[in-house]
Order: sequence, then structure tokens, then C-alpha cells
Amino acid sequence: MTKLVARSAATLGALGLMAAPALAQDSAVPAETQYIFNTLLFLIGGFLVMWMAAGFAMLEAGLVRSKNVSMQCLKNIALYSVAGLLFWLTGYSLMYTGVDGGFIGSFGPYSFDDVGGNALDTGYSTASDWFFQMVFCATTASIVSGTLAERIKLWPFMIFTIVLTGFIYPIAGSWQWGGGFLSEMGFSDFAGSTLVHSVGGWAALSGALILGARRGKYGADGSVHPMPGSSMPLATLGTFILWLGWFGFNGASQLAMGTIGDVTDVSRIFANTNMAAAAGVVVAMILTQVLYKKVDVTMALNGALAGLVSITAEPLAPTVLQSVIVGGVGAAIVVFAVPLLDKLKIDDVVGAIPVHLLCGIWGTFIVPFSNGDTSYVTQLIGIACYGVFTLVASTIVWFILKALIGIRVSEEEEALGLDKVEIGVEAYPEFGIGSTR
Amino acid sequence: MTKLVARSAATLGALGLMAAPALAQDSAVPAETQYIFNTLLFLIGGFLVMWMAAGFAMLEAGLVRSKNVSMQCLKNIALYSVAGLLFWLTGYSLMYTGVDGGFIGSFGPYSFDDVGGNALDTGYSTASDWFFQMVFCATTASIVSGTLAERIKLWPFMIFTIVLTGFIYPIAGSWQWGGGFLSEMGFSDFAGSTLVHSVGGWAALSGALILGARRGKYGADGSVHPMPGSSMPLATLGTFILWLGWFGFNGASQLAMGTIGDVTDVSRIFANTNMAAAAGVVVAMILTQVLYKKVDVTMALNGALAGLVSITAEPLAPTVLQSVIVGGVGAAIVVFAVPLLDKLKIDDVVGAIPVHLLCGIWGTFIVPFSNGDTSYVTQLIGIACYGVFTLVASTIVWFILKALIGIRVSEEEEALGLDKVEIGVEAYPEFGIGSTR
Amino acid sequence: MTKLVARSAATLGALGLMAAPALAQDSAVPAETQYIFNTLLFLIGGFLVMWMAAGFAMLEAGLVRSKNVSMQCLKNIALYSVAGLLFWLTGYSLMYTGVDGGFIGSFGPYSFDDVGGNALDTGYSTASDWFFQMVFCATTASIVSGTLAERIKLWPFMIFTIVLTGFIYPIAGSWQWGGGFLSEMGFSDFAGSTLVHSVGGWAALSGALILGARRGKYGADGSVHPMPGSSMPLATLGTFILWLGWFGFNGASQLAMGTIGDVTDVSRIFANTNMAAAAGVVVAMILTQVLYKKVDVTMALNGALAGLVSITAEPLAPTVLQSVIVGGVGAAIVVFAVPLLDKLKIDDVVGAIPVHLLCGIWGTFIVPFSNGDTSYVTQLIGIACYGVFTLVASTIVWFILKALIGIRVSEEEEALGLDKVEIGVEAYPEFGIGSTR
Repeated sequence: MTKLVARSAATLGALGLMAAPALAQDSAVPAETQYIFNTLLFLIGGFLVMWMAAGFAMLEAGLVRSKNVSMQCLKNIALYSVAGLLFWLTGYSLMYTGVDGGFIGSFGPYSFDDVGGNALDTGYSTASDWFFQMVFCATTASIVSGTLAERIKLWPFMIFTIVLTGFIYPIAGSWQWGGGFLSEMGFSDFAGSTLVHSVGGWAALSGALILGARRGKYGADGSVHPMPGSSMPLATLGTFILWLGWFGFNGASQLAMGTIGDVTDVSRIFANTNMAAAAGVVVAMILTQVLYKKVDVTMALNGALAGLVSITAEPLAPTVLQSVIVGGVGAAIVVFAVPLLDKLKIDDVVGAIPVHLLCGIWGTFIVPFSNGDTSYVTQLIGIACYGVFTLVASTIVWFILKALIGIRVSEEEEALGLDKVEIGVEAYPEFGIGSTR
Repeated sequence: MTKLVARSAATLGALGLMAAPALAQDSAVPAETQYIFNTLLFLIGGFLVMWMAAGFAMLEAGLVRSKNVSMQCLKNIALYSVAGLLFWLTGYSLMYTGVDGGFIGSFGPYSFDDVGGNALDTGYSTASDWFFQMVFCATTASIVSGTLAERIKLWPFMIFTIVLTGFIYPIAGSWQWGGGFLSEMGFSDFAGSTLVHSVGGWAALSGALILGARRGKYGADGSVHPMPGSSMPLATLGTFILWLGWFGFNGASQLAMGTIGDVTDVSRIFANTNMAAAAGVVVAMILTQVLYKKVDVTMALNGALAGLVSITAEPLAPTVLQSVIVGGVGAAIVVFAVPLLDKLKIDDVVGAIPVHLLCGIWGTFIVPFSNGDTSYVTQLIGIACYGVFTLVASTIVWFILKALIGIRVSEEEEALGLDKVEIGVEAYPEFGIGSTR
Repeated sequence: MTKLVARSAATLGALGLMAAPALAQDSAVPAETQYIFNTLLFLIGGFLVMWMAAGFAMLEAGLVRSKNVSMQCLKNIALYSVAGLLFWLTGYSLMYTGVDGGFIGSFGPYSFDDVGGNALDTGYSTASDWFFQMVFCATTASIVSGTLAERIKLWPFMIFTIVLTGFIYPIAGSWQWGGGFLSEMGFSDFAGSTLVHSVGGWAALSGALILGARRGKYGADGSVHPMPGSSMPLATLGTFILWLGWFGFNGASQLAMGTIGDVTDVSRIFANTNMAAAAGVVVAMILTQVLYKKVDVTMALNGALAGLVSITAEPLAPTVLQSVIVGGVGAAIVVFAVPLLDKLKIDDVVGAIPVHLLCGIWGTFIVPFSNGDTSYVTQLIGIACYGVFTLVASTIVWFILKALIGIRVSEEEEALGLDKVEIGVEAYPEFGIGSTR
């Protein structure tokens, strides 16, 4: 197993930790062959995680009302694009170069190996590594999009996305995957329960608090008015896409498959990831049947995602049974947290805060359950560091945006729907009753 | 070519058939590199077949009426989850360990290689093998879901899924891929025309007969009332997903790509699989144009699936022309069988019985057409064994469920739609006329 | 880097250019291992590009009105099937065998390596190469389908598809990727901005001119009546699918990943491809905001595709910044060309002519911007050759079809929608207002 605490050869090289971190020197697999396998793992993992952007788009398009569907579609393709540009301009360098046990990397755009480059000593192609890390950055932004749907203005959201993907996510990420202070402290987050999902969740929570709930969602008498999503099959499709993409998210976070030990670990990760999600679905189904006498399909979908987020901090070490427990508990957290958020009048349109923030915390906290090299105290310290930083930084950005250009559409615009107001293209011009609901 | 009759190194090891079945001892590719390639094939094939679960979900969501769409979405993600849990708890061991020429494997959950495990002699990671075999098991359950849509209760369906994925499928599978008696007899089913598709089809047929047709589907005068599906684009998407996933289904059933012979075979399988499906589409289009003066898009989609199921029993040996013939005949079977089933008043909502059962039989029977090592008689014996066992076992389970808890919703509930009754979440709350149709 | 001008070992072998073109003789990776990697690249690239067929289906299903959605679904699965059959019957041989610096290959179907074949000297499995090249051929046909939607008859379209995929595309392709005269002249089109996208675009333009606009699209007074697409989430899904598939389209066009130089290049291509698309989205968003005061989601989607088509002619050589420029300019071309086409009363339902034809030209022309081995003059010669040939050949076929069987539905049929008239299956029987719009 060549799993590294830091996720980039560049970082490790800079730290002088090792000469060729991703190549196993004592392997029977030739170094060049290892390099190809490692790079291929990043490419396959990368396209699978890229595909998660489509998953978020479909999940959110299915869970908002039809008058806001075009907007969610636009935001999701736009944030994926912005994440790519920013993770090239500033993100990768801030996260992975010159962190050196500290709090932040260096500034400036990132460039790849030359054409036909053969810098064998990195252990894999730098462009493949960049691509794989970039799609993680995009995932973080996707999480925010869902929570704030149906009332946030387009352009302030895009500006927030720039700050999140270009600065907040990579700076925070540098602490751990860039070889920063949390990495040195022994904090462990294999594939990003905290670094990706909780960071996205904290940013979403901050936005939801500042933005306020959708009009009509919460009555003055404490009542909650359901605003059902427009398309369950799209939400289901989105969940399946995310599940599929997660094999890349967790599996390729092994960062190497050039030895039999590494590829065996990738396989364990695939199986454990799947089982945590499966357990999440079953737990959500049983709990909603018991609690509400009906199975809530959106809760079953969120149960799958809950399981996936929960196992992400440690998908390698657990046994299958441990994976089932970690994923199942994650789903239970979501089932109970969704109505709790409504009691707190925090309006999270797609349930991203329970799924990504709470399960991100849960998954990160429970790592020592299966991984004896970690400690609950250090895990809590890491969780707290990410929470405080992301919440404070996001809140500052949201307040600046609110003060300067406003972040919320007008009451009338919200009633009409964002598609008519800001996009000019209705999602389903020939169907249904649109904004009457 | 290292293609094995039995699909698991564990089995073969137990049988003492060979020490390292998936590694070619005389290959110029080092054993460690072969191990990585073989494992990678399972992982890629596995995620492609996992994606087929989304394909079935979309196909069925598109082919049922909108009042039952949420239910089909839920069932498909639920059955995939249950299949994962059961294939870990009982399925894999029943199918692949200790079958020893017999009728059943051993009981108990399955566990994987240790972290960083390097048991080179298996030829691939056990977790990758488990993952790949598990998604096949899930496919079997998906087939049942479509046929019985729009009138079966959720929880009896889930219990049937537990029995099917945890017991019926793996026990039957052990006879062939686990190295059981049919394997020793020379029966051949490369990727599961019979073991997966016909088994699912027999279980679906049994359920359809016991459950009865949807109310209003068949008039007392012998008339058939079409109940058009709610979304052709979702059905189309589902078919494309299945087609894509089938490259993993058939291609990775080569079980190895660590030699140039193996990877060349995987390539042949990709091409042949594609051509059988392509021929199926074209044949279905031409036949429906000739028969009905219009091209039926659902028939074209089922034509693709018919071609895919038909080629699955032997996707390697045929020439391209033979693949075209096998797939084209499969589509013709479907075009003629769909109205025949209606005459028999067997209500198969998505056409799964013609596609998976009949084409599964056809594809398995016709193996000797291209593979000289097989015989028509043995193929028929195998087909009969799977038919009798699955039909009897399924029927017993359905009758027990019917007697104990009932399997069909009430007349009123069926009219309202399962989404309102059992899920409480409508699929498209803002569109259309819903239950009036 | 073992990138070849001609895309097939068969061709190069016939040309005597080299004995084992795709194997690097001086590599530390054993030849057998290289063969497996190269073949695997084709298989992964192939299934990703195959998936683009689903992308076109969803994009077009989302951008036509609901009364024509079933037809677009059918056409897309049908053209993919026909492309497979024709590229086996005539296409591959016409494109890749015996071109020998000339204008056309040889006639006849293509056959693969034998089962277990181990012809190491080709450098990869012939079936994997065929599969990869076939899905490119299918892409060309997909482009035509979108432009001509909502008024072309099914069967004439299918006959055109046969001619396009069996003859026009492969003959034109032979000039470059088959080692024909343009290849010898130094023309460069890495992954098909011209060979695939412009060829499809020219064929679409020819068809649009001959077929005429949809009734009611253009008023006698020069006014343009928007006919909004029926589903933005499906159009978005289609775009994401295409984006995902494009990693295979461009990345696997490296044609080899058996050396660290090759796999490093594949990685560069992944990153550059992504960045061109990302820039396209952002440019389209900003431009439509400035021009129209609203962001047009369909333009953002087409911006992504514009970036992808533009970078396809040279995704390897550019720096990230160059990729961003190439993709961003492509998107700007689309934003300005869409209204221009409307002024010319060329009715392109999905915007395929700006995206595939104009960006295909732009991307091919700008290759020397990043690749010093090419010349603007030669690029223009190549662009012109493909334009003249495809336009003339397509026009002849369209006129013959028009004269013999007619290519356009009647006025009444167009108003009713193609689904009712030619398919008999409505796309959304329970939703919406259908043909009233």
C-alpha cells in the first residue's frame, strides 16, 4: 500500500518526503508500467467524478419546482466550468505546492508536463493529477448550489463559486492533502468527507442562514409547507450518477494502482463504498416506513448519498460490516436531521446540509472505528478547523455580496421563478402549471 | 485465452483445478502486471454493470404511467441495494465457494483480501471479483421489477428480491459459474443469457401469472388496452445506459485481460455485443414498419435489448455476421412475442419477459452456431434446469408472500397509483393529468 | 509520443510506414503490456464515445418540442445502429485499408483478430480499433439528426445515414486518418474537428437548405418565432454526457498509452479538453448576459459543446491558456452565429451548424496557433476539401431522396408532430399541451 497522507507528488517532492512517492520501489511491476497504471487511475477516477457534476445537476433539477429547473441546470454546468478555471488559475497551487506543514500553498496558475513528457519520478502524469483534484473541487461547489436553490441570484452565486473553488476550498484542502498542519497532526480524511463534503456543507449552511428560507416555506405558526420537487426520475438518475461517480471519488483516492497491493485496496474501496450506500438506502426506507407509514423516495435517495458521504473519510480500512454500519448510521442521521432543519427554519432545498455536512462530520469522526492509526480527538480537531474556517470565510463572502449587489431575488421574482426572470428559458414550456405552485 | 468455465478463482482453487487460474503462466506480461489488469477489468466492468441499475430505473420510469414512476425509481435503487447486501451475506458463498461439481455452495458472508493484500496467486483482487459478480446479481432482480410494475406492493417485492438475490440466483448460478454440475456437463453461458437474464425472466413470469394483469389492461372481449409509458426519452436513456453497461457485462466476463489474447477477446466481445444490439434495433424498426406501418420506438428500444440479451451467452466466438444474425433474430422474437403475451393475458409492463426470458433462451440455445465446443442438447438441458428451478422456486415464494401478506394493492390503490399510496411522493407533481389515465 | 498521422495500424502496415506503429520499441514497458494498454485505451475511449450517442439523443430530445421527442429518440438510437452496421460493411475498409496516399480505401466488410489472437505486431487489438473508429462515425450522423429535426421524414433520414456512415464519412476520412493525400500534405486534425464535426455539419447544412425551415419559424416580415425546446434538464443531461464522452473522443485519439509519454499526453488532452469546454460555458454566459440581459441556458450548453468541438483538432499541443482561448472563441462564434443563421432563414433546430460546422472550422484553422508543425494554408486546404466534398456529396443524396421518395412531411403532419404520424408513440402522453405550440 503506497497510500500517502498528502495527495500530490509535487507537494511531497517539495517537502522532500520522498523521491518518487507513487512508485513502489520494491515492486515487481516496472516503474514505467506503474506510472501508466497510476495515471490511468487518475483519468478513470477523474472522468467518473466529473460525471458527478451531471449527477448534482439532475438531482437538483429533480428536487426543485419546475419554475427553477433551468436555473439549476445552468448553475451546475457553470460551477463545474468555473471550478475548472479557478483550480487552474489559483486552486491547485494554493492546495498542493509549497504548503510545507503550514496553512496555505503558493499563488499562481498550474502548468502540466510537456507534450510527451516523461518525468517518471513523479509517479504519474501531473495533468492527470490536476484533472482528478479539480473535479473534487467542483464537487464542493455543487453542494452549495442545491441548498440555496429557488431564491438566490445567479451572479452572486457565481462569484461565491469563484471564491469557494479558487480560494476557500484549496486553502482549507492544503492543511491536509497538501501536506499542511493537519496532515502533520495525524488527521485522516481519505477521500474528502470533510475536505470536500463538509466544506461544501458549511458553505451551504452559511448561505442558507444569510439568504433565508423560500417565501411560504415556513408559516408563522411553525408549520412547514412542502414544496415537492418537479421530477423524481431525474432526482433518481442524479443519485445513480453520483453513486457511480463515487467509485472514482473514493477508489481513485487510493492515488495509485501500480502494485497489486494498491489495486487490491482500490477494489476494497469499491466494495465498501457500494455497501455503505446500499445500507443507507435500506435504513432510510425502513425508518421512513416506520416513522411515516410510507417510504419516502427522496429520503431513500438521500440515504444512498448519506452512506456515500459517510464512508468517504475511510473507505479502505473497514470490513464490509463496518461499512454497512457507517453508511446506515449516516442515513439515520439524515432521516432525523431533515425535519430538524425544518424546525430550525433552515431551508435546504435538496437536503445537502444533512447529507454532506452532517454525514461528512459523522464519517470523519468515525474513522478510528476501523482505522487504528487515527484518534477521535485528532479527527474532532480537524472537523472543527474546517468548520470554523469555512463558516467564517463563507459568511464574510456572503455578507459582502449581500451588501454590494444583493444575493436574493425579489418577492415577485421568486414567485415567478428564476427561469423566467434570470434565464429567459423555461425548463418545460409545454408542461404543467409552472409557477402556480 | 484464459477463459474459464467457472467464474471465480476461489472456486477453482477449491476444486484444485489450477493454482492461479487467471494468470497465464507462459505470458510475457509479468504476473503482477497481469493481476492489476485483471482486477482493473473487474472494476471497470463492475462500474459499467452497476450503471445498468440506473438504466433499468430509467427504462421502467419511462415505460410506466406517471402515477407509478416514483415507485419504479424507488424499487430500482432499493433492489440494487438489497442485492449488494444479500450477495455479501449469502450470495457469493452460495454461488462460488465449495460447489465442487454439485448443486450449491456454502453458507455465510464473504470477506475480501486484507488491506494491501497481495495474494498474487488468485490472479485478481477478491473484492473486485465480488463487486463484479454482485452487479450481475442485481441485474437479475431489475428484470423482475419491470414486469410486475404498477400493481405489486412494495414490501412483498422487496422480500422477493431478498430471496432472489440471496438464494435463488446464487444457487442456480453455482451450477455453472460456480463449477457445479452443469459446468461439468459442458453447458455454456458466457455472460449470463440464462444465468442472469432468463433467471430474472422466469421469476418475472411466475410473478406476472400469480399477480395477474393490471385492471383494465385486458377487456372481457379479448381486447387489449394500451397503457402508454409516461416518458419516451427516459426509456431511451435507460436503453442507452443498458447498452453502455453491457460492454462491461459481456466484456469483463472474459474475466482476464492480462495477456494480449485476453484483451483481444475482450475487444471482440465489445464489437460483437454492439453489433447484435445494432441489428436488433434495425430488425425491430423494419418489422414494426412492415407490420404496423409505423415504427414503434419502444419496440426499437426493446430490439436493442433483445440483441444484447441474445448475444450474451456467447459474445466471443461469433463472427460479426453471426452476431448480427443472433441479435436480429432476438429482436424478431420480441416483436412477435409482445402481442402473443397480450393474447395470453400475461401483463408484462415493460416487455421484460420477451426480452430477457425468450431472448435469454434463444441466445443460450444458439451458442453452438458459433462455438463448436458446445452442443445443442446440453444447452437445452441447461436451459431446462434453470427454467424448472427458477419457476418452481419463484412460484413457491410468490404464493407464500401472497398467502401471508398479500402481494397486490387494492383496486382503489391501483387506480390512484402506487406513488400516492405507498410512496407519498408524486413523480411529477406539477405536470399533467396523472391518475386520470 | 507515438502519435501517428494515420489512425490505424492496418493502414500504416499497408503503407509500409513501420512494422509495429503503436508499440514504442525503445520503451521500458514490455511490448505485450503496451499492447494491452493501447487496446484498453481504445475500449475505454470507445465506450465513452458510444455514450455520446445517448448525449445527442438527450440533447435533441430536450431541444425539440414534445410532439417530436419520440422521433428524435428513435432516430438517435437508429443512426447509432446503422453506423455500426455500415462501418463494418464498408466504412472501415474504405477509410483505413489500402488508401496509400490516395482518396479512398478498399471495399468490403472488416473482420477482426481471431479469438485469442495474439498478433502483437499491430500494437493493439483490431476489434478495439474498429470499435473506437466506429463510434466516431456514429457521431457524425448524430450531428445531422439535430439540425433537421421536426420536419424530416424518418426513412429518408435513415437512408441518408446509410450513405453518410457507409460512404461519405469514411471516404473523406481516408484522406487524413487513412493515410491519404491530406495526411501526406501535412494537414492536421487530431481528433476530428473537421473529419467528424465539420463533415456532420456540412451534411446538416446541406439538408437544412434543401429541406427548408419549419413552418412558422420565420415570418414573411423577417421575424423569427422561437420554438422552445421541451426539456432543459434533458438538454443539460445531454451536454454533460457529451462532455464526459469527449474525454474518450479526444483522449483516446492519442491512440496509445503504452508508454509514459503517451499516457502523459492523454492526460494533457483530458485537461485541455475540459478547459476549452469550461471557457466556452463562461464566455457564452457572459456574452448572453451582456447582449440579452439574461443568461440563455441553451447557449451556455452550446458554449460547452463549442469549446469541445474547437479544441478537438488539437487538444494536445496547447497550453491551458491556449485551450481556454480556443474554446472561448468557439463559444463566441456560436453566440453570434445562431442569430445570423436565423437571419439567413436557415433553420437549425439544435444549433448544430454553429457548434459542429463553424467551431469545427475554427478549431481546425487555429491548430498552428499551438502546434508549430502545421501551417494555416494547409489547414485551410484541408477544411476546403472536406467542405466541398461533403457539401456536394450530401446535396446530391438529399436531392435524389427528395426526387424519389420525398424528404419532408406534409404541412398537416408537421403540425401534428412526427411522433403521432410516423412513430405512433407519444413521448409524454400524460403531460402538457403537445401540438398546440
